[in-house]
Amino acid sequence: MIILGIDPGTAITGFGLVEYLGNSYRPIAYSCLRTSPDLSPEIRLQRLYQGLQEIINSYRPEFMAVEQLFFNKNTRTALAVGHARGIALLAGANAGIPVAEYTPLQVKQAVTGYGKAAKQQVQFMVKTLLSLKEIPQPDDVADALAVAICHAHWSTKPGGLKIKND
Amino acid sequence: MIILGIDPGTAITGFGLVEYLGNSYRPIAYSCLRTSPDLSPEIRLQRLYQGLQEIINSYRPEFMAVEQLFFNKNTRTALAVGHARGIALLAGANAGIPVAEYTPLQVKQAVTGYGKAAKQQVQFMVKTLLSLKEIPQPDDVADALAVAICHAHWSTKPGGLKIKND
Repeated sequence: MIILGIDPGTAITGFGLVEYLGNSYRPIAYSCLRTSPDLSPEIRLQRLYQGLQEIINSYRPEFMAVEQLFFNKNTRTALAVGHARGIALLAGANAGIPVAEYTPLQVKQAVTGYGKAAKQQVQFMVKTLLSLKEIPQPDDVADALAVAICHAHWSTKPGGLKIKND
Repeated sequence: MIILGIDPGTAITGFGLVEYLGNSYRPIAYSCLRTSPDLSPEIRLQRLYQGLQEIINSYRPEFMAVEQLFFNKNTRTALAVGHARGIALLAGANAGIPVAEYTPLQVKQAVTGYGKAAKQQVQFMVKTLLSLKEIPQPDDVADALAVAICHAHWSTKPGGLKIKND
């Protein structure tokens, strides 16, 4: 089972493809898509969409997983991230791939066993579970791999929860 | 010049096509796209994208105009609107249509001559400028027509301002 995890953003979208082998994980590819602030908003979203289409066409993931985001303060940031997040969901839907969304608590629980784990602990466990030499950089890439691992974890658990909403 | 104004939302996206004739406006079509809350988020966005593609293919607008949104309180709403807004921007970009964004102040200024006009006043002027018998319903449709009129207004003014950002 190959899962595409995505951490969406207009400037940087992290992505991570993880193969789940039943009792272990294999990293297939992970990096990030960047768009220049010199481009207009709609062209940046178009580039992001094209980038995600290329990734999906190249690796044929069976599932997409995206983190549910919560913002406490900055609604401007929420709107901009919403743009990129909408594009990611559309890319999944248009490729016919089921898309699952997970809360930060679910991601942390799946990756570290503790729903309130620190960011550093999540990153450390991503590195460990995928047998990587280093923590992937930037953070968006590690986060994308974490949500991919999360999907494998929950979707294969009996009664594993999967949250969907908008 | 045919302009497609859009007021994006996941549940309801208002749209309005307006032809600008130099010194008057002609309404071409206006309505809204609705998606069911029973569908998953990515499928709702896919339906919205398909709906916008059909509108663009049918009416071949030369410009798209979308309101810049600001949220003071609800970041959850901002994220959801951001999803739909990102889809609208992508639909414009993928159709090769220039997309302009306007602040609420610019829309009100263009439609009523007063940047702090009440919503009812904007709706009344949309009805008047387009020679409609009634104010279009729901509000999302009137808002979409208002931003289309706004684009005609500013883009044809010498030194007319046009804001773009993300």
